[in-house]
Amino acid sequence: MTETSLLPALTDADREQMHADYRHLHTHPELSMQEHRTAEFIAAELAALGVEHFRCGGTGVVGILRNGDGPVVAFRADTDGLPIAEDTGLDYASRDTGTLADGTIVPVMHGCGHDTHVAALLAAARVLARHTNAWSGTVVLLFQPGEETAAGAAAMVEDGLWDRAPRPEVVLGQHVMPLQAGTINISTGTAMAMADALRVTVYGKQSHGSQPQAGIDPIVLGAHIITRLQTIVSRELDPTTPAVVTSGTFHAGLKENIIPDRAEFTLNIRTFEQETRDQVLAAIRRIVSAEAAASAAPEPTVEEIYTFPRCYNDPQTTAGIAAALRAELGQDNVVDAPPLMGSEDFGHLADSIGVPSVYWMFGGFDLAAGPAPMNHSPFFGPVMEPTLSTGARAAVAALLSRLGPART
Amino acid sequence: MTETSLLPALTDADREQMHADYRHLHTHPELSMQEHRTAEFIAAELAALGVEHFRCGGTGVVGILRNGDGPVVAFRADTDGLPIAEDTGLDYASRDTGTLADGTIVPVMHGCGHDTHVAALLAAARVLARHTNAWSGTVVLLFQPGEETAAGAAAMVEDGLWDRAPRPEVVLGQHVMPLQAGTINISTGTAMAMADALRVTVYGKQSHGSQPQAGIDPIVLGAHIITRLQTIVSRELDPTTPAVVTSGTFHAGLKENIIPDRAEFTLNIRTFEQETRDQVLAAIRRIVSAEAAASAAPEPTVEEIYTFPRCYNDPQTTAGIAAALRAELGQDNVVDAPPLMGSEDFGHLADSIGVPSVYWMFGGFDLAAGPAPMNHSPFFGPVMEPTLSTGARAAVAALLSRLGPART
Amino acid sequence: MTETSLLPALTDADREQMHADYRHLHTHPELSMQEHRTAEFIAAELAALGVEHFRCGGTGVVGILRNGDGPVVAFRADTDGLPIAEDTGLDYASRDTGTLADGTIVPVMHGCGHDTHVAALLAAARVLARHTNAWSGTVVLLFQPGEETAAGAAAMVEDGLWDRAPRPEVVLGQHVMPLQAGTINISTGTAMAMADALRVTVYGKQSHGSQPQAGIDPIVLGAHIITRLQTIVSRELDPTTPAVVTSGTFHAGLKENIIPDRAEFTLNIRTFEQETRDQVLAAIRRIVSAEAAASAAPEPTVEEIYTFPRCYNDPQTTAGIAAALRAELGQDNVVDAPPLMGSEDFGHLADSIGVPSVYWMFGGFDLAAGPAPMNHSPFFGPVMEPTLSTGARAAVAALLSRLGPART
Amino acid sequence: MTETSLLPALTDADREQMHADYRHLHTHPELSMQEHRTAEFIAAELAALGVEHFRCGGTGVVGILRNGDGPVVAFRADTDGLPIAEDTGLDYASRDTGTLADGTIVPVMHGCGHDTHVAALLAAARVLARHTNAWSGTVVLLFQPGEETAAGAAAMVEDGLWDRAPRPEVVLGQHVMPLQAGTINISTGTAMAMADALRVTVYGKQSHGSQPQAGIDPIVLGAHIITRLQTIVSRELDPTTPAVVTSGTFHAGLKENIIPDRAEFTLNIRTFEQETRDQVLAAIRRIVSAEAAASAAPEPTVEEIYTFPRCYNDPQTTAGIAAALRAELGQDNVVDAPPLMGSEDFGHLADSIGVPSVYWMFGGFDLAAGPAPMNHSPFFGPVMEPTLSTGARAAVAALLSRLGPART
Repeated sequence: MTETSLLPALTDADREQMHADYRHLHTHPELSMQEHRTAEFIAAELAALGVEHFRCGGTGVVGILRNGDGPVVAFRADTDGLPIAEDTGLDYASRDTGTLADGTIVPVMHGCGHDTHVAALLAAARVLARHTNAWSGTVVLLFQPGEETAAGAAAMVEDGLWDRAPRPEVVLGQHVMPLQAGTINISTGTAMAMADALRVTVYGKQSHGSQPQAGIDPIVLGAHIITRLQTIVSRELDPTTPAVVTSGTFHAGLKENIIPDRAEFTLNIRTFEQETRDQVLAAIRRIVSAEAAASAAPEPTVEEIYTFPRCYNDPQTTAGIAAALRAELGQDNVVDAPPLMGSEDFGHLADSIGVPSVYWMFGGFDLAAGPAPMNHSPFFGPVMEPTLSTGARAAVAALLSRLGPART
Repeated sequence: MTETSLLPALTDADREQMHADYRHLHTHPELSMQEHRTAEFIAAELAALGVEHFRCGGTGVVGILRNGDGPVVAFRADTDGLPIAEDTGLDYASRDTGTLADGTIVPVMHGCGHDTHVAALLAAARVLARHTNAWSGTVVLLFQPGEETAAGAAAMVEDGLWDRAPRPEVVLGQHVMPLQAGTINISTGTAMAMADALRVTVYGKQSHGSQPQAGIDPIVLGAHIITRLQTIVSRELDPTTPAVVTSGTFHAGLKENIIPDRAEFTLNIRTFEQETRDQVLAAIRRIVSAEAAASAAPEPTVEEIYTFPRCYNDPQTTAGIAAALRAELGQDNVVDAPPLMGSEDFGHLADSIGVPSVYWMFGGFDLAAGPAPMNHSPFFGPVMEPTLSTGARAAVAALLSRLGPART
Repeated sequence: MTETSLLPALTDADREQMHADYRHLHTHPELSMQEHRTAEFIAAELAALGVEHFRCGGTGVVGILRNGDGPVVAFRADTDGLPIAEDTGLDYASRDTGTLADGTIVPVMHGCGHDTHVAALLAAARVLARHTNAWSGTVVLLFQPGEETAAGAAAMVEDGLWDRAPRPEVVLGQHVMPLQAGTINISTGTAMAMADALRVTVYGKQSHGSQPQAGIDPIVLGAHIITRLQTIVSRELDPTTPAVVTSGTFHAGLKENIIPDRAEFTLNIRTFEQETRDQVLAAIRRIVSAEAAASAAPEPTVEEIYTFPRCYNDPQTTAGIAAALRAELGQDNVVDAPPLMGSEDFGHLADSIGVPSVYWMFGGFDLAAGPAPMNHSPFFGPVMEPTLSTGARAAVAALLSRLGPART
Repeated sequence: MTETSLLPALTDADREQMHADYRHLHTHPELSMQEHRTAEFIAAELAALGVEHFRCGGTGVVGILRNGDGPVVAFRADTDGLPIAEDTGLDYASRDTGTLADGTIVPVMHGCGHDTHVAALLAAARVLARHTNAWSGTVVLLFQPGEETAAGAAAMVEDGLWDRAPRPEVVLGQHVMPLQAGTINISTGTAMAMADALRVTVYGKQSHGSQPQAGIDPIVLGAHIITRLQTIVSRELDPTTPAVVTSGTFHAGLKENIIPDRAEFTLNIRTFEQETRDQVLAAIRRIVSAEAAASAAPEPTVEEIYTFPRCYNDPQTTAGIAAALRAELGQDNVVDAPPLMGSEDFGHLADSIGVPSVYWMFGGFDLAAGPAPMNHSPFFGPVMEPTLSTGARAAVAALLSRLGPART
């Protein structure tokens, strides 16, 4: 902030537009890989700015802001919401619904704050598009769908992203978190955990509820597995090695008086090291298989749903970005932080072309007013300011630090 | 069978009609209290026989076969199917679907054999209607919906059943079971267990799957409850006191990386004595509540879905019915049997007017060919004969034993 | 036998002697197969009566009351106490201790009432010895050690019991229970369950308590096995098939900050049918083995400690004994009862020579005064009367019903 | 101190004596607070060196090596063994036994390597006593008993340690670990975890093993608690917050056919932060209490056995010590390390008089030869060299870095 005046700045009009964008996006979230209206909205905004753009990876949108020779830098904002019933009480809260793969209609909410990412990146694009005299090169705006399912980054890459857009020398990105609004946390090296998702189907033998002896009870089997899985973290790993094994869903049975023939549950695994990941995945398979044997049940099936790569902040690149963020937002407002248990498919965008990437967290809450809800909570409603302005300013500052100097 | 010739008998044409009825019913099962097409089918058959009839309890049908003065005797056949994906491989297997209360579309199957009950009772009605010279009095044919949910008998009684139909002096009924086709099991006194169904909702606290510390995990809580509930039967009850506590469904969560805010499961409880029932229900509530406390979770809710009364065979009345069945089917083919863990709302039809009732089981399988599937199994496909003829003959014989003599 | 006056009767002096014997025995219980002082006491009493006797099976005593030609009938009383700290508050409560196989010193109590069996059989012997004019034949008095460990009957048989004592045509026995004092329960056919005892050792890997990742935790493994074993009764057996799986001991570890290398627990299994027994034993081995696999632990060891045979009351013989008991104690005081989950090695005495046996239960408590403690409770203190007199009268009446008529 | 040659050095004779001491100590370990022979051995060695000494805290020994004016520095070695059956196969392995508080006789082993601490400190004392020309001030040698039970440091302080010995300006100490022999790990700030030990007694209701309905099964209750306790680490704590909850012992029951009236188990808890500690202890109490409620059992008792304070390395003091160790042992052989989950009562010695302390770990194994066993393993047998020399040299170097200069 020592020389903010030299940087292109957000105007009041920019802020108003950003707030309006945010309200609209928050009210109308869409499930992963179904972000059709969101993509249309983004494309319309880019068109209004005169920014070249195209669809990519289904519901992804890529904007290209060309400004003469110079470095190519990419910035990614993810766009998807979650199947959560919003309970924030905000006047712009979502009441929209979506449809899961199995046909179930569910409420949808921007429960992870991706709407702030989109609104802030659109505002940053607006500033950069207005101040083309202040920089040179090319900005690639990546509005990525399907982050929550680890599907979107891969979908964009597979859809020819880097054949259709200029290849950047670095990919940047950011995420809103329950930190103090106005501040940023940035890690060097590992930034976020690897994540794996598994779908486990255990098989029993269906029978009348009054005749357990004629069946094999998959719900009791599943309960023992869920209970046993707790011992991976509590007993099998070094206590100083962070790891998470969460079962987010468990579904079995249609009727209280029928012992069903199967139960299905999903697991979400977070680890920081490949060795830990291998150990946890092996322990899960061992426990699932052995517990089925304890029930005299058939061998369960364990399917991979997705794998999130580790999100890695290249140390040298990160040092430069952190300096730029500190210059813009104030020395004390940018904090070196340890890695997070959360996961991201952000890294795939840069990994797929072998360039470095940097990812940081920006605050979304006034912690003085009480504890902030966590991401994926039905109460996750960031305060609009200084959250959005911080996101937009961080994007502008980080991009400018990597773009070329003003054209003369 | 010693004097079969005196009884009105099934003809080959009766059997052909009964088989055709059965194939049709089996192919087109309907969920409880949604038996619309089944009710139309039954009504059409009764109309074809010239039997007076009316709808009762929504999708129930009552036929009244009047034949002069004499005793009034009722016979009940239940009509509903189950949300099971049929796997019998029969050429007349069901591929129909139904819709659960929550909108889920599910496969439907006559997995409990109620189609045999309907086909056999229609055949019996045909025989009695043709041989009005062989008996006197009134037969009340009760085609009851919604047995599987304990809703149908109550619905018919509440819909004025006994104001609209003549009050019988006894209510009879039967159920197909994995016994040898051609044989019957009959109990004196308690015939089937009391059943209770509960819906338990445990509440956690939603959070991101990578941040268990920010939430309370309702799936882990539910798993501990399911595990703990096993100790009611294994540790709290006298080992010689039969009881069952089954969880037929467990549902929680929409996404593998969100710890959900609740889990819902249903329980099905079978007991023979009121004292045992009270003890089991109290233990369930105690365990559910304490396990929630162990998770620091809010108090769960426990709702009653239904209660099946005990199905009681009045000893004196049963003795007479058993004698009639033995006379028709052969001494060795009617076996005195201990009570079953299964449950029925059949008893409510008689209890509501304070008359006795008798209920028996008839076999549906050729046990020499291999073990029979249990009711509610996706493989439950009774052999048509001698299953259906036995059911029809038993109905005729039992009814005649209580009706008046031939009119002179 | 319908006229009680014809039977040799207990005198007041008999009762006083029996009460004194009982107090002495109750105060000085001994552990199974260590009944040295008890054996000396019994031998001294038999000597005082002039009854021929010898030691058999270590701490067993056999008395032979010969009274001319006639039937030979055996009556068995077991003599051992239990490692329980008595809490009856009786003035003759035990404060004695004993030493377990592993050297542990434990309190000992007649917590199963075997002292009443001994006192009553000594009193019966006294009556019969005094009234040799009222009967003929031979009474074999079997004071058997080690019933609680299923070791004593086998030890006596192996020590040549039936080579050293006349072979009886029937073996009788009785057990005090929490029934109304003065009454008897008798079963026809199966009287008591089969019992099996197993010792399970699960192996982990020892490590420092702060480094679970370096070890395999056998206590957590054991806890999962204990929890899982509950499902055998709750889910694998027909609810109408009585069975018990109890773990009576669980021992692991010496220090709170060392994860030990093993845990050892014992199981006690009760079943009525060989098929059920086989099923339960197989399920235990399956679960123990699979849970070890779930822990990545070595294969546990499962050792048999003992097997109790089924205790079977030959129907025809039982009918005669029950009639004799009813004649002596009153029609209403002898009740036909279902079999008990408890177990006995009593049956082995008769089985080993292929003769029938009959076993009954006599009450030891005033139920009007409150609920009676169960056998093996630290509060198990039978009321002396009419408990002991009932036991003695039952023994006399049953023996006389099988012995020969008065010698003329 | 940069030139090793200036430091007093271990001679071959010192090494031989140290090895002989070590062999003796290893062969004859004693349980915590019972180190009578060990104390005699140490006292005799100090006497041989002419070092003033006294007993303190029962089996503790304090040596005071006075060498004119100058700083007072204390060095602590703990002296106790563990109830572990040694399985190292060493020719000097222990075959000694000890007696636990409940009278159980157990094997004893120096399974945590305290024998290396004693042998190395005695050797260091020997060197310093021989080279009094090389330093000035006073060395306080603290041979502390009962580290494993957190009883010894407190016992010495309560026995007037700091009234009887000169008060040091710093307390030093070290521990052998499964690191490469010849190397040292040292942490700045928190060095070792806080540890708490609890004894939990759950109460059931005793009954015959065949009558679970008459009792409340404390083993099943305990199993559910052990299982549930795993969720504290797996679900309640931040995955990046290290913590351990270990149950090292579980004891219940005397006989397989008696459901006992209680089960007793111990817990060992490791945490780094007071807030985490409070959270874990509260969760344990909550779970224990709620699980008892789920069993309809009485409220359990939870007793504190001991609390280990956090072991904290004062940063400034540590910097100096680390420099001295690097100078003596080589730059690369002294590694900055994260804190350990292990715990120590070492900190209490300094905390009790408000002076700083520094604690480090020295390696005891040749890692190239295979993985090293963990402390408390029955295979924990450090290689004698360079283990012991490293310990002795580290002690000498660290002490000299804080003592005064050579007297002139």
